[in-house]
Amino acid sequence: MSSEKNRKEIVFEVAKRAVLAARAMTRVSAGEKNRALNKVADFLDEKSEDIIFRNGIDVEAAREDSLAEPLIDRLVLDAGRIKSMTDGIREVAELEDPVGEIIQESVRPNGLRIRKVRVPLGVIAMIYESRPNVTGDSAALCLKSSNAVILRGGSEALNSNLAVAHYIREALADTAVPPDAVQVIDDTDREIVKHLVSMKGLVDVVIPRGSEAMINAVSSASLVPVIGHGKGLCHIYVDSSADPEKAVEITRNAKVQRPGVCNAVETLLIHSEAAEKILPEICRRLREDSVELVGDEKARKICPEMGEAADEDWSAEYLSLKLSVKVVSSLEEAVDHIERYGSRHSDCIIAEDTCACDNFLRSVDSSCVYANASTRFTDGAQMGLGAEIGISNQKLHARGPMGLTELTTYKYHMLGNGQIRR
Amino acid sequence: MSSEKNRKEIVFEVAKRAVLAARAMTRVSAGEKNRALNKVADFLDEKSEDIIFRNGIDVEAAREDSLAEPLIDRLVLDAGRIKSMTDGIREVAELEDPVGEIIQESVRPNGLRIRKVRVPLGVIAMIYESRPNVTGDSAALCLKSSNAVILRGGSEALNSNLAVAHYIREALADTAVPPDAVQVIDDTDREIVKHLVSMKGLVDVVIPRGSEAMINAVSSASLVPVIGHGKGLCHIYVDSSADPEKAVEITRNAKVQRPGVCNAVETLLIHSEAAEKILPEICRRLREDSVELVGDEKARKICPEMGEAADEDWSAEYLSLKLSVKVVSSLEEAVDHIERYGSRHSDCIIAEDTCACDNFLRSVDSSCVYANASTRFTDGAQMGLGAEIGISNQKLHARGPMGLTELTTYKYHMLGNGQIRR
Repeated sequence: MSSEKNRKEIVFEVAKRAVLAARAMTRVSAGEKNRALNKVADFLDEKSEDIIFRNGIDVEAAREDSLAEPLIDRLVLDAGRIKSMTDGIREVAELEDPVGEIIQESVRPNGLRIRKVRVPLGVIAMIYESRPNVTGDSAALCLKSSNAVILRGGSEALNSNLAVAHYIREALADTAVPPDAVQVIDDTDREIVKHLVSMKGLVDVVIPRGSEAMINAVSSASLVPVIGHGKGLCHIYVDSSADPEKAVEITRNAKVQRPGVCNAVETLLIHSEAAEKILPEICRRLREDSVELVGDEKARKICPEMGEAADEDWSAEYLSLKLSVKVVSSLEEAVDHIERYGSRHSDCIIAEDTCACDNFLRSVDSSCVYANASTRFTDGAQMGLGAEIGISNQKLHARGPMGLTELTTYKYHMLGNGQIRR
Repeated sequence: MSSEKNRKEIVFEVAKRAVLAARAMTRVSAGEKNRALNKVADFLDEKSEDIIFRNGIDVEAAREDSLAEPLIDRLVLDAGRIKSMTDGIREVAELEDPVGEIIQESVRPNGLRIRKVRVPLGVIAMIYESRPNVTGDSAALCLKSSNAVILRGGSEALNSNLAVAHYIREALADTAVPPDAVQVIDDTDREIVKHLVSMKGLVDVVIPRGSEAMINAVSSASLVPVIGHGKGLCHIYVDSSADPEKAVEITRNAKVQRPGVCNAVETLLIHSEAAEKILPEICRRLREDSVELVGDEKARKICPEMGEAADEDWSAEYLSLKLSVKVVSSLEEAVDHIERYGSRHSDCIIAEDTCACDNFLRSVDSSCVYANASTRFTDGAQMGLGAEIGISNQKLHARGPMGLTELTTYKYHMLGNGQIRR
């Protein structure tokens, strides 16, 4: 009971410091932010040996706990990964500052000048799992957009996250950016998250990035608005008008090029007319790449070497070299399937018929709807939006890749010289 | 138990019908939407006698329950109010259609064309209290932005809301807009709201509009993103550099012109140097308008006829002819007070010193920050944004007046001709 009370107080103190830091951030110039970011990157490079040592403690503990090898791989920080994190921070420093942009300006008939101005969100609570490089990436994006961030990583990465954050804060100490703009909570108890998401009025937005279960738990406990970065169950629909070569190459690329990420394809929907012509070749090429295929009855009739898809396969985000295949009798059936099983992330039609493309683009309710290109392009850098803090599955505020602009909001400056309402 | 299960099923059926209607709405053209809205307005005019009759049942019940007179006044629909509702619906038909706008377009080096396109949110659940004209206003704004809306008004207005919605749906029956795009839930049990806000995947956004307690209850129960429209505790800060005439006129207008609304001022903060010079005149004029004044010790020294402000006064949204007054020793003290007690709605500085104005505009974290104008201009129509569904107090997605544009989101059309990622 008393330790519970202490936890709440600890989170409250962290949140209050973040509020003060966020307020101070509104006075830091773009040049000062960029200098601070470059200093952070240099200092993390300088301290990389110690970060790798601290990370080793986490990795060893994970091995002792027999964590699965892919999870351990996500956890590891080596010289290359630290370099890529610090290069990323330097790239963020190069990006244009979104804060202060005048989005719209108008003068009303009574002379009142209304400016819609881009401002920081304020205090961002970031809740994530495993990968400790997220600590550096998120801190850089939040600082560049003049926010204060409270980081809550996974318990398995605690030593790594604390080390990275410690050196970020040390580097900030003699810059214009207050060190409290980046805080890591060092208590890994689950109750911490519950307290953090109830700090309405102090925390402005919660960004959970991880499993669907984690995001749902955060959403249902939160009094603060949440932007969830979750599941990617992406579909490719091959229309009867599809170009066979594009169908093969795009499906292969979307499945094989990097299967463990959220914008990889998990389900292939193929029109019955196209299935006869193209499916055998798609299957042949995917098997060459060691992709395991499971299909419905119609798909297995055409490619009998395919396994049988169970009901669960349509809801499965494999994140591995596995693909489910379903033959559909119309574009509408494909759209219905995507609506039922998809995650509103990235879905693609392959078709030469422009009417079919337009229909698909309008009907599919996902953040990125593709015609004739690999779903792997759903990515802030690939889309020219700069670095991203994640990919939002929701419709409010930020949809798809969430970059610097999406880490801001706006306010109205109402500039008068005595206007009153009649 | 079984009735609870039935409630959940009822809400689920309503939500499913809304999803189908929302999908159909993506195929309705701007012209068809406008024709439907005008038809709705005409039909509500035609049926106004019956609506007034049904409203009378609610008003009579409210009188029997001894509801407070201002609440009964909010409940009443007479010929004038119905006319103003239907005129509002016709004005919404005249507004530009936000849906389909290409917000940004770029072509990547690999030839992939990326279009950021404005699309409807989908299914909006609107939870509100008392005023039955909100039923017509909200339905019109949601339809015009191609959304489907589920309306849940207060139990005291049930007959009125059902009548308005019934005639809206009847009017829609032979238009291109599906009647299920506007649904009212006729069960007033509180559990209904709980089920409604847990329909993640079916309901896209919940808009509660009413008391702070109601909004907090909805937020904490909701699995769906919430945009709260709540409290307006607005401040005016009179700087030492203020023009006395502006200070008097703006304060008077912001308090007296319509005291019962969220953009009226509730607290006057005045710099000690200005207080000596200007406060007596402000008080004299406000008393002429029958405003009750309560102040801190310093304010009462200057205007002894003022009552004593209690701690609760700084947090009070009076919504009546009452104003709290506090003398501050600096702009920073005013900003701190606003941060502590304000509702991030509308706050104003009165100052001739442009540095002071800039400092206030940057430091105060509210949706509308004013320099030298009445806070009463925080309003969609006054700001030139068209009709509004409410005024958002939160920072995500929509801040301040929420009009047609804020009832939309975007998606990316990713248009390729075979692009794959290397």
